Amino acid sequence: MNSPIAKFQGIAAHNSIFEQAVRQLPLPVCSVFESSTQPTAIQFKDTAQTLGTKDSAKVAESFPNTVKASGNKVLEGVGANPKVAQGKRVAVLFSGGPASGGHNVVCGIKRVLGNGNTLFGVKPGPKGLLKGNLFEITDADVNNIINTGGFDFLGTDRTKIKTPEQFAQVKETCIKHNLDAIVVIGGDDSNTNAAVLAEYLYTGIKPDGSGVQVIGVPKTIDGDLQIGDLLPISFGFDTATKIYAEMVGNILQDTRSSLKYWHFIKLMGRSASHVTLEVGLQTQPAITLISEEIAEKKQSLSSIANDIAQAVVKRAAKGIHHGVVVIPEGVVEFIPEMGALIAELNDVLAQQAAAFEKLEKAERPAFVAELLSADSAALFTSLPGYIVDMLLAERDSHGNLQVSLIPTEQLLIDMTKRALKAMDAKVPFATMNHFFGYEGRCGAPTLFDAAYTYNLGLTAGSLILDGRTGYMATITALTSGGVPKAIPLPGLLNIERRHGHDEFVIEKALVKTGAPAMQYFVAHRATWSEDDCFASPGPRQIWGPTALQQPITVALNSGADSLAFKIG
Amino acid sequence: MNSPIAKFQGIAAHNSIFEQAVRQLPLPVCSVFESSTQPTAIQFKDTAQTLGTKDSAKVAESFPNTVKASGNKVLEGVGANPKVAQGKRVAVLFSGGPASGGHNVVCGIKRVLGNGNTLFGVKPGPKGLLKGNLFEITDADVNNIINTGGFDFLGTDRTKIKTPEQFAQVKETCIKHNLDAIVVIGGDDSNTNAAVLAEYLYTGIKPDGSGVQVIGVPKTIDGDLQIGDLLPISFGFDTATKIYAEMVGNILQDTRSSLKYWHFIKLMGRSASHVTLEVGLQTQPAITLISEEIAEKKQSLSSIANDIAQAVVKRAAKGIHHGVVVIPEGVVEFIPEMGALIAELNDVLAQQAAAFEKLEKAERPAFVAELLSADSAALFTSLPGYIVDMLLAERDSHGNLQVSLIPTEQLLIDMTKRALKAMDAKVPFATMNHFFGYEGRCGAPTLFDAAYTYNLGLTAGSLILDGRTGYMATITALTSGGVPKAIPLPGLLNIERRHGHDEFVIEKALVKTGAPAMQYFVAHRATWSEDDCFASPGPRQIWGPTALQQPITVALNSGADSLAFKIG
Repeated sequence: MNSPIAKFQGIAAHNSIFEQAVRQLPLPVCSVFESSTQPTAIQFKDTAQTLGTKDSAKVAESFPNTVKASGNKVLEGVGANPKVAQGKRVAVLFSGGPASGGHNVVCGIKRVLGNGNTLFGVKPGPKGLLKGNLFEITDADVNNIINTGGFDFLGTDRTKIKTPEQFAQVKETCIKHNLDAIVVIGGDDSNTNAAVLAEYLYTGIKPDGSGVQVIGVPKTIDGDLQIGDLLPISFGFDTATKIYAEMVGNILQDTRSSLKYWHFIKLMGRSASHVTLEVGLQTQPAITLISEEIAEKKQSLSSIANDIAQAVVKRAAKGIHHGVVVIPEGVVEFIPEMGALIAELNDVLAQQAAAFEKLEKAERPAFVAELLSADSAALFTSLPGYIVDMLLAERDSHGNLQVSLIPTEQLLIDMTKRALKAMDAKVPFATMNHFFGYEGRCGAPTLFDAAYTYNLGLTAGSLILDGRTGYMATITALTSGGVPKAIPLPGLLNIERRHGHDEFVIEKALVKTGAPAMQYFVAHRATWSEDDCFASPGPRQIWGPTALQQPITVALNSGADSLAFKIG
Repeated sequence: MNSPIAKFQGIAAHNSIFEQAVRQLPLPVCSVFESSTQPTAIQFKDTAQTLGTKDSAKVAESFPNTVKASGNKVLEGVGANPKVAQGKRVAVLFSGGPASGGHNVVCGIKRVLGNGNTLFGVKPGPKGLLKGNLFEITDADVNNIINTGGFDFLGTDRTKIKTPEQFAQVKETCIKHNLDAIVVIGGDDSNTNAAVLAEYLYTGIKPDGSGVQVIGVPKTIDGDLQIGDLLPISFGFDTATKIYAEMVGNILQDTRSSLKYWHFIKLMGRSASHVTLEVGLQTQPAITLISEEIAEKKQSLSSIANDIAQAVVKRAAKGIHHGVVVIPEGVVEFIPEMGALIAELNDVLAQQAAAFEKLEKAERPAFVAELLSADSAALFTSLPGYIVDMLLAERDSHGNLQVSLIPTEQLLIDMTKRALKAMDAKVPFATMNHFFGYEGRCGAPTLFDAAYTYNLGLTAGSLILDGRTGYMATITALTSGGVPKAIPLPGLLNIERRHGHDEFVIEKALVKTGAPAMQYFVAHRATWSEDDCFASPGPRQIWGPTALQQPITVALNSGADSLAFKIG
């Protein structure tokens, strides 16, 4: 070919200039893993720290083997393991929504297992484990996926393993592939699953009567899997929030350039507001809503809209007719009156399903309003039509409203317009709305997430070679070199009533309104609201002087004086 | 204060860790600007290249001064200017939508003007020029804004200067501030404005009878201001497309991780598809729509949807139930049948406004359909209800539909669902939609845009000190060190019938379907469509091995063999 395109060096699939470069990036390891050649497997010892919840006694009854083995004690990595197991067959899987750094967990496990053991990938997620869909992971795979974003090497899914049939299928997979251990990379639900699997697979699984070890790894961009200094943050949170913060920063810069719009930006995070708080601290927009605070203050939808309207008016008085409002995805359920309305609606629609279905669409709102409490009916009839339609839309398989589908950002725009009208405020209020979510789950990991996850993988692999089961890997002391530890999973379990029966759950860590990160936010937000005091964090950098930054919320809550982090 | 937040080093407004670091970043300059201390002002000489359009004769009649002075010849910077003007008073303004790198243009102008001349900033945009809202730009300002994104240092607006009253206001501002020159940083319309201003201000403006020079600088993220090798690309395009490409790459990575969704992503770019083509080449998704090709092939809406449905089915046969479709914002107007329908609707609604207004909302579609041609009526009645509503919605001040408000991404999802149903294809097709626009206009500039715009500023400033007017600054030879040139603005002007009378315009450069960038795309798209062959370009890097990359479309169209660029 002699055309002008023939000599152009194209981009091969999964091989952008960036992807090629990050594969060569060296990763730091905690000093305890250091050796001259490849990372050393380490051994673990009990610490004095014991975990437990209000339900620990009941948990001990249901998890006799793993609770007895661990004593619910936290473990710490204490140096090279002198008698590392050989010939172990280990499977690894992703569970739940993807998060940046997952590939590096796999790489860390593979590197620490070395050539003496075998690592299998499970495709995709828990469903792949049930089906026994495993393949051997090679060194070439590791060199190819290291430092790249996404879970696409293995895929993921959201299957929960809870029925006897499912447990039997897992057992069959373990036997068929002669597995010695399983690593589950996932969030709160997935780690609960790991705890249950660890107990179930503790003994008597394989023909020789031995069991299969299970280790969890803490993942979730939502940041709601946190245990103080023991687990300052789950992986993926840093990358997702830095991606969202760049976009919010860009839009803030746009508002002050084009001088026209208020942008209402909804950020992913199903329940807790950690993501929104972090992005708010990174970018300092006019308004950052925190669901947990709204719940605590028992704010109504119209009082929230009123607060926003007040800020619009205050800024307008200074000639500023633009701004940004950052909104956590899950806020609607934290507004007490909305939570109550949604709960009542779920009941009414379940009880009156037949009558409801027979009605014309236009007749339904009035029919439903009749059956609600006075407060809920008043709120319901005051909402814009598209929200009413959505509130009456199809329920999920548990009969619950799919809250994530509610266009909260548009609702708040419309409620703010209403509030401005009620105040008779004659100020320009042109708006735009956005939802940032999927673009943050699979980006190339920040250096923080890349280094953190690689060391989580080294820790998970070491735990397996040290014969441990029922633990979640963690790295502590992230600002002073990093110390690998292991969290006994049963020590995290609570009992919750779900769908009519008791279930073991790891409670989601919500934003604590008294924590330093919130105190810092509360101390500064009036300034940020009244003027253009935003910051633009820019694109996350892998090289150069700005590459090493931990999340602000993590720094503040751990009492650090800066954003520096240091592994190795 | 003794609280844990007291010792935390917070982030000051406009002073993130990234913003602090990029302000220190040294920028390369074309060798002709090099000196031991600060960039040297250069002089310009005529080249042999002359510009012109079919309307050049008429342009020469309306632009006698500037055409006579330039002879429509391109200028080239040829070395240090031995007799640089001193005491010049220069104003600079942004015009139109913001684009990354604008601040560096200002910095370049200020640095080359040095201490012997004065630079004023105009706030905001052309409106600020009419009002005479000017302030002196200091060296401290330059050190503060350099390498930061956005137009927020000066703000911008979209006022077109065309009435005699407006010209008189500009003259008044020039006299009041004793200006010698104005630099207009903007797109095709703004540079047309610059050409008109240059002619108007050529002579007899100030009390001594002298004129005011006007220089344009080529900005637009849309990339539709291009003149072959003379202006390979306008500034802002590289940053915007790299921001969008990262997001699209992240979502592609997500599709192959969570294995669930087809994402339909609309990208900003009012008319031309340069942005979408660039992002498509950077990321290689299953489908990239190019408006210009659709127009050329006279594709219908349903044939486009059919093509997408075919791809969905083909991938499903391989077990791939996910993908990404990238859509240019302006595509609807390029689909011939939609363009015809919209034009007919504009006419019908203008002619039948009174009758239309009297009807109930539900009666309007049938009323309008009666008045359309048979083809348009058939298309109109086949569209989803929310599109019909939008097509009948309020017109802009010129009686035109606001095409940018049409949710094209949702329309294509619904049409694809319809096509799949018509094909009786039993394949999963869960979807998500996105619009990436505002987040790409004000991001921190890529190194390409940062260096390019700084040198554009040095060129614009040098043109002024060399006594030139009616030119647009440009940098050519971007892969071999950079050569500053100047494009005679009247040489770009065409005559177009707009709103009932002739107007001078710089024609928007659309995507050429025969150009190398399109050839490359066409040669590869079947492969990208049938399998997951995407690439993830990652976040743009300012430091490190991946920082220096020019746009792929620019590289291909200029015959380069790689993405490398080199200024200085």
